Amino acid sequence: MNLAVVILAAGKGTRMKSDLPKVLHPIAGRPMVQHVVDAAGALDPDNTVLIYGHGGDAVRQAVTGSRLQWAEQAEQLGTGHAVAQALPHLEEDVVLVLYGDVPLIQPQTLRDFVARVDDQSLALMTLTLDDPSGYGRVIRDGDGKVRRVVEQKDASDDEKAVREINTGILACTRRFLNDSLPRLSNSNAQGEYYLTDLIAMAVDAGMEVVTEQPGHAWEVDGVNDRVQLARLERVYQRVRAESLMRAGVTLLDPARLDIRGNLQCGQDVTLDINTVLVGDVVIGDRVTVGPNCLIRNARIGSGTHIEANSVVDGAVVGEECQVGPFARLRPGTELAARAKVGNFVETKKAYVGEGSKVNHLTYIGDSRIGKGVNVGAGTITCNYDGVNKFQTVMKDGAFIGSNSSLVAPVTIGENATVGAGSVVTKDVPDQGLAVARGQQRNIQNWSRPEKK
Amino acid sequence: MNLAVVILAAGKGTRMKSDLPKVLHPIAGRPMVQHVVDAAGALDPDNTVLIYGHGGDAVRQAVTGSRLQWAEQAEQLGTGHAVAQALPHLEEDVVLVLYGDVPLIQPQTLRDFVARVDDQSLALMTLTLDDPSGYGRVIRDGDGKVRRVVEQKDASDDEKAVREINTGILACTRRFLNDSLPRLSNSNAQGEYYLTDLIAMAVDAGMEVVTEQPGHAWEVDGVNDRVQLARLERVYQRVRAESLMRAGVTLLDPARLDIRGNLQCGQDVTLDINTVLVGDVVIGDRVTVGPNCLIRNARIGSGTHIEANSVVDGAVVGEECQVGPFARLRPGTELAARAKVGNFVETKKAYVGEGSKVNHLTYIGDSRIGKGVNVGAGTITCNYDGVNKFQTVMKDGAFIGSNSSLVAPVTIGENATVGAGSVVTKDVPDQGLAVARGQQRNIQNWSRPEKK
Amino acid sequence: MNLAVVILAAGKGTRMKSDLPKVLHPIAGRPMVQHVVDAAGALDPDNTVLIYGHGGDAVRQAVTGSRLQWAEQAEQLGTGHAVAQALPHLEEDVVLVLYGDVPLIQPQTLRDFVARVDDQSLALMTLTLDDPSGYGRVIRDGDGKVRRVVEQKDASDDEKAVREINTGILACTRRFLNDSLPRLSNSNAQGEYYLTDLIAMAVDAGMEVVTEQPGHAWEVDGVNDRVQLARLERVYQRVRAESLMRAGVTLLDPARLDIRGNLQCGQDVTLDINTVLVGDVVIGDRVTVGPNCLIRNARIGSGTHIEANSVVDGAVVGEECQVGPFARLRPGTELAARAKVGNFVETKKAYVGEGSKVNHLTYIGDSRIGKGVNVGAGTITCNYDGVNKFQTVMKDGAFIGSNSSLVAPVTIGENATVGAGSVVTKDVPDQGLAVARGQQRNIQNWSRPEKK
Repeated sequence: MNLAVVILAAGKGTRMKSDLPKVLHPIAGRPMVQHVVDAAGALDPDNTVLIYGHGGDAVRQAVTGSRLQWAEQAEQLGTGHAVAQALPHLEEDVVLVLYGDVPLIQPQTLRDFVARVDDQSLALMTLTLDDPSGYGRVIRDGDGKVRRVVEQKDASDDEKAVREINTGILACTRRFLNDSLPRLSNSNAQGEYYLTDLIAMAVDAGMEVVTEQPGHAWEVDGVNDRVQLARLERVYQRVRAESLMRAGVTLLDPARLDIRGNLQCGQDVTLDINTVLVGDVVIGDRVTVGPNCLIRNARIGSGTHIEANSVVDGAVVGEECQVGPFARLRPGTELAARAKVGNFVETKKAYVGEGSKVNHLTYIGDSRIGKGVNVGAGTITCNYDGVNKFQTVMKDGAFIGSNSSLVAPVTIGENATVGAGSVVTKDVPDQGLAVARGQQRNIQNWSRPEKK
Repeated sequence: MNLAVVILAAGKGTRMKSDLPKVLHPIAGRPMVQHVVDAAGALDPDNTVLIYGHGGDAVRQAVTGSRLQWAEQAEQLGTGHAVAQALPHLEEDVVLVLYGDVPLIQPQTLRDFVARVDDQSLALMTLTLDDPSGYGRVIRDGDGKVRRVVEQKDASDDEKAVREINTGILACTRRFLNDSLPRLSNSNAQGEYYLTDLIAMAVDAGMEVVTEQPGHAWEVDGVNDRVQLARLERVYQRVRAESLMRAGVTLLDPARLDIRGNLQCGQDVTLDINTVLVGDVVIGDRVTVGPNCLIRNARIGSGTHIEANSVVDGAVVGEECQVGPFARLRPGTELAARAKVGNFVETKKAYVGEGSKVNHLTYIGDSRIGKGVNVGAGTITCNYDGVNKFQTVMKDGAFIGSNSSLVAPVTIGENATVGAGSVVTKDVPDQGLAVARGQQRNIQNWSRPEKK
Repeated sequence: MNLAVVILAAGKGTRMKSDLPKVLHPIAGRPMVQHVVDAAGALDPDNTVLIYGHGGDAVRQAVTGSRLQWAEQAEQLGTGHAVAQALPHLEEDVVLVLYGDVPLIQPQTLRDFVARVDDQSLALMTLTLDDPSGYGRVIRDGDGKVRRVVEQKDASDDEKAVREINTGILACTRRFLNDSLPRLSNSNAQGEYYLTDLIAMAVDAGMEVVTEQPGHAWEVDGVNDRVQLARLERVYQRVRAESLMRAGVTLLDPARLDIRGNLQCGQDVTLDINTVLVGDVVIGDRVTVGPNCLIRNARIGSGTHIEANSVVDGAVVGEECQVGPFARLRPGTELAARAKVGNFVETKKAYVGEGSKVNHLTYIGDSRIGKGVNVGAGTITCNYDGVNKFQTVMKDGAFIGSNSSLVAPVTIGENATVGAGSVVTKDVPDQGLAVARGQQRNIQNWSRPEKK
């Protein structure tokens, strides 16, 4: 039995008050609709049709997935009309209908749900709420069989007392969709074609309407404004934090962790407050991350400590390194084992060798630093002449005196020394010493400037 | 019908354990009592009388508003006594009594409330609570008319079951106040004159006691200690965050946003975790603010990105700029469009021209930087001779080599270049090159220092 | 009546998924079991026996306390078996049994509890829960006397309806333990010896089982995984935050404060969001700490302001100082009154005299700075020659021009001046001026490099 997924993503989302189409607003850094595509993708469907409308080009460019097709819903004439746009693209046996603005639906929920569909059964995702007001109620007969869905405004008092509501998510055979969608009517107050009317059609056709509930209520929460968006962002983060803790990561405050991407995390890792992890991040065993750090697209070796208020972006950090506080590693940085990068230090396209130290107020760009090098405080690699960038090499064991300027291209030899405050423009030989600074003159009893 | 507001602000607030008078403790950076003055001010009253006592001078200096008057309550003899101190200052028809330690009352609630007052009606703000214990209960007769307020300790079991409580906020005619306040008695356990006793007097006088409830329960929450202060701070921030989201701003975590002042915010702005906005802040469209940024009294142009861990204070930032991470813009900074200020850079009284870059480890003070200027890493404008401050000018297209010192007053000409590591003390002509550094000497086979 | 405490700390804690023994996982920076030792220590017991097993050496090394003894439980044969390992070490009259993974038990609760024990009474800590499912129920007879504890799986429906549960914490005479522990049986599904069986034995022996409930439910919460660990970390922090507020400290957000150690805090202190306080911290009156600061093992003088994003570690800060934003004070830093340390400044083993200023992009290490000194932006003390560290002295009134390098050992004399951009290698006399930089050459119409 093969499967198609139809995802409704055509709504404008006026209440978002945004130029961005609603379904592209991100949760955890990923567009809402992409969450839905990915959840559906976990079922390996043979075909996924996205119904787009408002902001179509933007949506088409932003969303990726395998076996995706696109169908335009030029006018917004209701959910039934939206699904009808998918019909020409569907050949599969079973069709699952999802919503681009209901982003946190989980694969396991969908698997259990789709498994309920057969020729005689339409599956409807329902939810039992303490307070069902406003939602369509699922009305069952004395045998517990679903008879229909009644909207709030049409419900009798008895029906209003029903706490099981329709989430809108359904699955059925393509054959049934083909038969029934063309028969939908828009004779209602809003003049729209409602997908929900399929329930009654299925019942009339003698089919059973089987229901499933999601594993968690938040899986079927929709987003209509940024308050709801923020709420689901928090749900998502809470769930990830909890799963991380169960896997053996210590979080000083689960409510102050943000994971926006893929995280692979070793054992006995500790993440302090306000850690933000973006993109693809791999963290080894026994790593500690201090308060208020941002780590993006990085790999952190086992036993490494990232200290408070650091930003690590596009870097590979070796084992047992020490980074920060106030360090900023930029893309192309690679730290070998036991390297140290300290406060107010920026690195970019830089290799820092084993055990080398760049501890204070330094800019290392386009550089290759060997093993056991000590880069003094205030050192600047002058890698840019205004149009070109050049390489600085510091060989094993080099000692760079504080406040030096290394004007690239330049090589500091093995075990060579640069005197403090030097501006080095020529290579320094191995074992050599370079000094490049003015001679000191002392003037006695100098008259200080006066207030003007 | 003209309106006077009386605000009780004389309490010491012993439980605050503070040298600061209670009503001056801030919520969202503004003294509590100022919130009350401002809320009342939205009704454009003809007269506002603040009753002060403890810390009177401090209170008088801290609070601003139009048509404010001050009346001292030298001894703390109860709320009725406090309002009586206002009488000599009152000429208006209607008087609204508010509390300096009930800070979050909203203008709309007050408008609806005051509208209920006439010659035959006293208005009482009440609240229905799930758990009313400890509060004075509002007792009504069979017709639902308010008869009196009974304090907890005097209440019968039936009365204790009443869940509608007295908030203390009331409004009535000045005439009624004039008549009734002098007749208050302090024959009670505490020997105080209670404003609440006016309710019974009004009923006895054949007036109707009309009640209103606030839009939200927190509007009538009072502050007696710092736990309650923090709670209302959070309420305030939550409400502002929600209103910001409804207006089209994305908040990564509404619980980690602090707004302490006036904020004007464009469309499709994204504020990451722990953004703190202080004073008057204007943010254009499509601005993003990274994690852990503090922005105070600043204007941020459309399309600008403020990266993680930055502090922007007293600055005007143009459109499509990039600031941070770890940038600090100080007062008097102005960035033109597309300027970039990067990590570990401090600017103060500095204009940075269109498209210019100050990317790394730099101090720019008292400077004017033209268009398309590149300021190398580690550059310092030496603007201070110990007593006077001087100006540094970098004209359009200038290129400042890394680790340079520009000793003000000094001008770097158009398209001029400063060699890396130079100490520039004299002006550099347009198109010129300045080099000011020591000659490099290399010494072969230098003997490193030994451990002492 | 003398007291012994037995603390069960032998469990592996598989669900922690950790190489660290469960009881060593920290709450507020202190191992869980240490919290229990300290809480028990407040009762000044004559003897405390820790039962260790998994990770024994690590546990023994990590835990400190007075009159501690250790007993190994080589095999995990149940709580009764664990306590039996303590018997040879016990000589006291009364024995209190606690758990190393129930960390937040409070001294007052224990005092009240132990006071209930006598020859005829065993004390059992119980808790009344809304939802008792899963826990052993405390079954009482018609007179309200405890008869026994029934585990969930053995409970009848009536018994399941009981909401009072057994927490496992008990206290009794050593004599009773001596008599009863050897009589425990492991004839149960798990083949373990259960301490709970002592309840029935006590009842059978005609003793009374007296119960106490803790002051707060969280005092008896146990930790089996990192989700529970994080929950108790938050409980702990919430409680400390609340007690701090009641003592007169303003917290901008009590949910964003972390105290991991001992804090002594003056009056009218304000801590902004995300303050993290580690180790021994003493804060004077009227101190303000800005957002996102980390303060460890430090003493902050009255009236001092620590600005946003600063890290203060192992430092003594005087009165009315200003630190940050983006300052990093490292161990051995001492700031005299009214000193200022500004953005992107690192200090280490440094004394900064009264009113002196180190405001921008500076590294001060191994230095002694007198009064009224101004250290210009970008100054670096070059304290390290690769093997040795040397001292820099700046005497009262010295003025260090920006971007200078002070090559230690070196002394800048009283009221002496260092020209901007100088590399100072020799002492500068009092009142003297030192200049040590290259001569500036200007070259007209210089040809800029071209793109390669």
